Amino acid sequence: MVINQSLVGAVAAARDAGASVGRILGARHGIDGVLSDDWIDLRRVTPERLETVAATPSAALGSCRHKPTEEDCARILEALLRRKVGLFLYIGGNDSADAARIVAAHAAKAGAPLRVVHVPKTIDCDLLENDHTPGYGSAARFVACALRGDDLDNRALGGVKIDIVMGRDAGFLTAASALARTGRDSGPHLVYLPERAFSPQKFVSDVKAVYSRLGRCVVAASEGIRDSRGVLVASKFSNERDSHGNLQLSGSGSLGDWLAHLVKEKTGIKRVRADTFGYLQRTFPGMASESDSAEARAVGAEAVRYALARAAAGAPAEAASISIRRRQGRAYAVEFVAVPVEKVAKNTRSMPDAFIAKSGNDVTPAFISWARPLVGPLPPSGLL
Amino acid sequence: MVINQSLVGAVAAARDAGASVGRILGARHGIDGVLSDDWIDLRRVTPERLETVAATPSAALGSCRHKPTEEDCARILEALLRRKVGLFLYIGGNDSADAARIVAAHAAKAGAPLRVVHVPKTIDCDLLENDHTPGYGSAARFVACALRGDDLDNRALGGVKIDIVMGRDAGFLTAASALARTGRDSGPHLVYLPERAFSPQKFVSDVKAVYSRLGRCVVAASEGIRDSRGVLVASKFSNERDSHGNLQLSGSGSLGDWLAHLVKEKTGIKRVRADTFGYLQRTFPGMASESDSAEARAVGAEAVRYALARAAAGAPAEAASISIRRRQGRAYAVEFVAVPVEKVAKNTRSMPDAFIAKSGNDVTPAFISWARPLVGPLPPSGLL
Repeated sequence: MVINQSLVGAVAAARDAGASVGRILGARHGIDGVLSDDWIDLRRVTPERLETVAATPSAALGSCRHKPTEEDCARILEALLRRKVGLFLYIGGNDSADAARIVAAHAAKAGAPLRVVHVPKTIDCDLLENDHTPGYGSAARFVACALRGDDLDNRALGGVKIDIVMGRDAGFLTAASALARTGRDSGPHLVYLPERAFSPQKFVSDVKAVYSRLGRCVVAASEGIRDSRGVLVASKFSNERDSHGNLQLSGSGSLGDWLAHLVKEKTGIKRVRADTFGYLQRTFPGMASESDSAEARAVGAEAVRYALARAAAGAPAEAASISIRRRQGRAYAVEFVAVPVEKVAKNTRSMPDAFIAKSGNDVTPAFISWARPLVGPLPPSGLL
Repeated sequence: MVINQSLVGAVAAARDAGASVGRILGARHGIDGVLSDDWIDLRRVTPERLETVAATPSAALGSCRHKPTEEDCARILEALLRRKVGLFLYIGGNDSADAARIVAAHAAKAGAPLRVVHVPKTIDCDLLENDHTPGYGSAARFVACALRGDDLDNRALGGVKIDIVMGRDAGFLTAASALARTGRDSGPHLVYLPERAFSPQKFVSDVKAVYSRLGRCVVAASEGIRDSRGVLVASKFSNERDSHGNLQLSGSGSLGDWLAHLVKEKTGIKRVRADTFGYLQRTFPGMASESDSAEARAVGAEAVRYALARAAAGAPAEAASISIRRRQGRAYAVEFVAVPVEKVAKNTRSMPDAFIAKSGNDVTPAFISWARPLVGPLPPSGLL
């Protein structure tokens, strides 16, 4: 929901840099636009328009799911040099960081005058070197709000409700469901993460236990839950893969439906429902968290300032990624640190053990303290 | 999302009535609470607390899906008289109106001193005698926001996106998806309603036509779409029925998954995704539309004032329902009119023909003009 904040932050910083920056170009649909020479002149967009774009969810330049090969990266470099690009910013997750790394390596090999900076963005919050990533706080806010509403519905109607949350390998977004809780016995009562092996038997007995105590049960489960051998539970229902070779998880309700069916069959509870939050988690307008918006803006600006400062100092053009670090201390504050792009490329991080309850079906208070400032205050709930 | 506004409106009006009203009781889980003598003393809830409750989605008193039999209604009357209830308010849709009608009939037959008023509430907007119903504007706001975000996502990534919206028999909520549009070529590009026969062949060719023109397509389809014989398309996948004998439609992603599969198979388009909005549509916190909140509050208050005025005038205790009428004129305004409860019980209304495009896959400008004031302003969208 905040990717355009990073774009606008970068454009504003480039404009502020004065004569040291010439044209400011945006590639339509990421590297596809670079390769097909499809650019927008971002200097021609008014500041007012840019502010509206910044507050709009989903990449205003367009996105692509095309993972560039080594050969593509060589062609990307050619295309950038043809357009006399001196600074190339690439907004995205670890795959984007890796593409940025390869383009930079080609540039270095060719002795080309190109600086490359990766700007982090992923609702999965799974980038190495980062306390959290732009996009996460807002998506987490959506999930927490959704679960709060869903728990109220479940309170009114009873039964079992299962919500499937995005996050293939990392449970951060599913874990954010726990922020919905307003007190004892409020849901989600069970939280299942990709970081812990999912046992259908254990799941059914967990649900039974909550239901027999409260007459109701709200479950948040990650789309990426997997069995003890590491096989995705969702692989039972789908074999479609995206261009990165990953199994398609979102855009289908089958995992939730299967879990609901399992509970019905094994417990005899009549009212069992599942919702799969799907793309709403990352695109819902008006849901951005304040700190997430501000940090996404800052990280885009920082990428430009970092590269210009390095260039002014005549420093070598090593590709960097701007990482978000949390400052020590009681009040929430962050700082931005440029790290070598290799450190965030390819690999990802999972939820730390300290954030996952020993039971394997909940988060810890440490997670709640960590996540709360990222999501911001939620609408109050009044019960009778 | 605004049912508690009606509750709080009624409580406030009863408090304002002074000594003519004694105790103010709320039954937990609707008629289940009446039958099991499970009440909350609403005079003991502070006004501050009531305001928080009013702004909280989902019935704070709890809900039930138990449709009362004639015998139940006789027992409900007994229970109410035992508690010396003189005014019985029943918040809900046409089934609730019918239950209110039956209780009132039993009271009349027994010559019991009970007044019954039905307070309308349904996100389906399908009550007779009403321009629209409390709950609709806020759920419609959620749907419009969701589609606006989804269209931005589809713009960025391409492909086909199918969104399944609540509404078993009436298409009002699915139609609200069209409010998401910001200009030419913005989605939803196709809107399928229960009021028009759904042909899978026509659907596939509609999608193909949009996709070949734009390289993308966003579809909003009602969970209640049905074939030319009136059979629900969703009946292919589910045979679970609720206590009203209705096929379970929500809480499963199978209709969306089937439509997505159909498009993939018949068109060869690779990226086809479906989301089923499910319960979020009616429970998402912080999404209530302003006019919907105000009208829900007013209709609860009006129910109390109407009954007290009739009692003061010594008028007969015929059961009524408070209906919402739209005033003629350019500025949006409503008035509340008490109608005999029989007029809103049992039967429902569908989208008028004037709201449905001749093509059968869209709404008309007349629908947009009608719906816009109910939903209120949406977050702005900035495109590049």
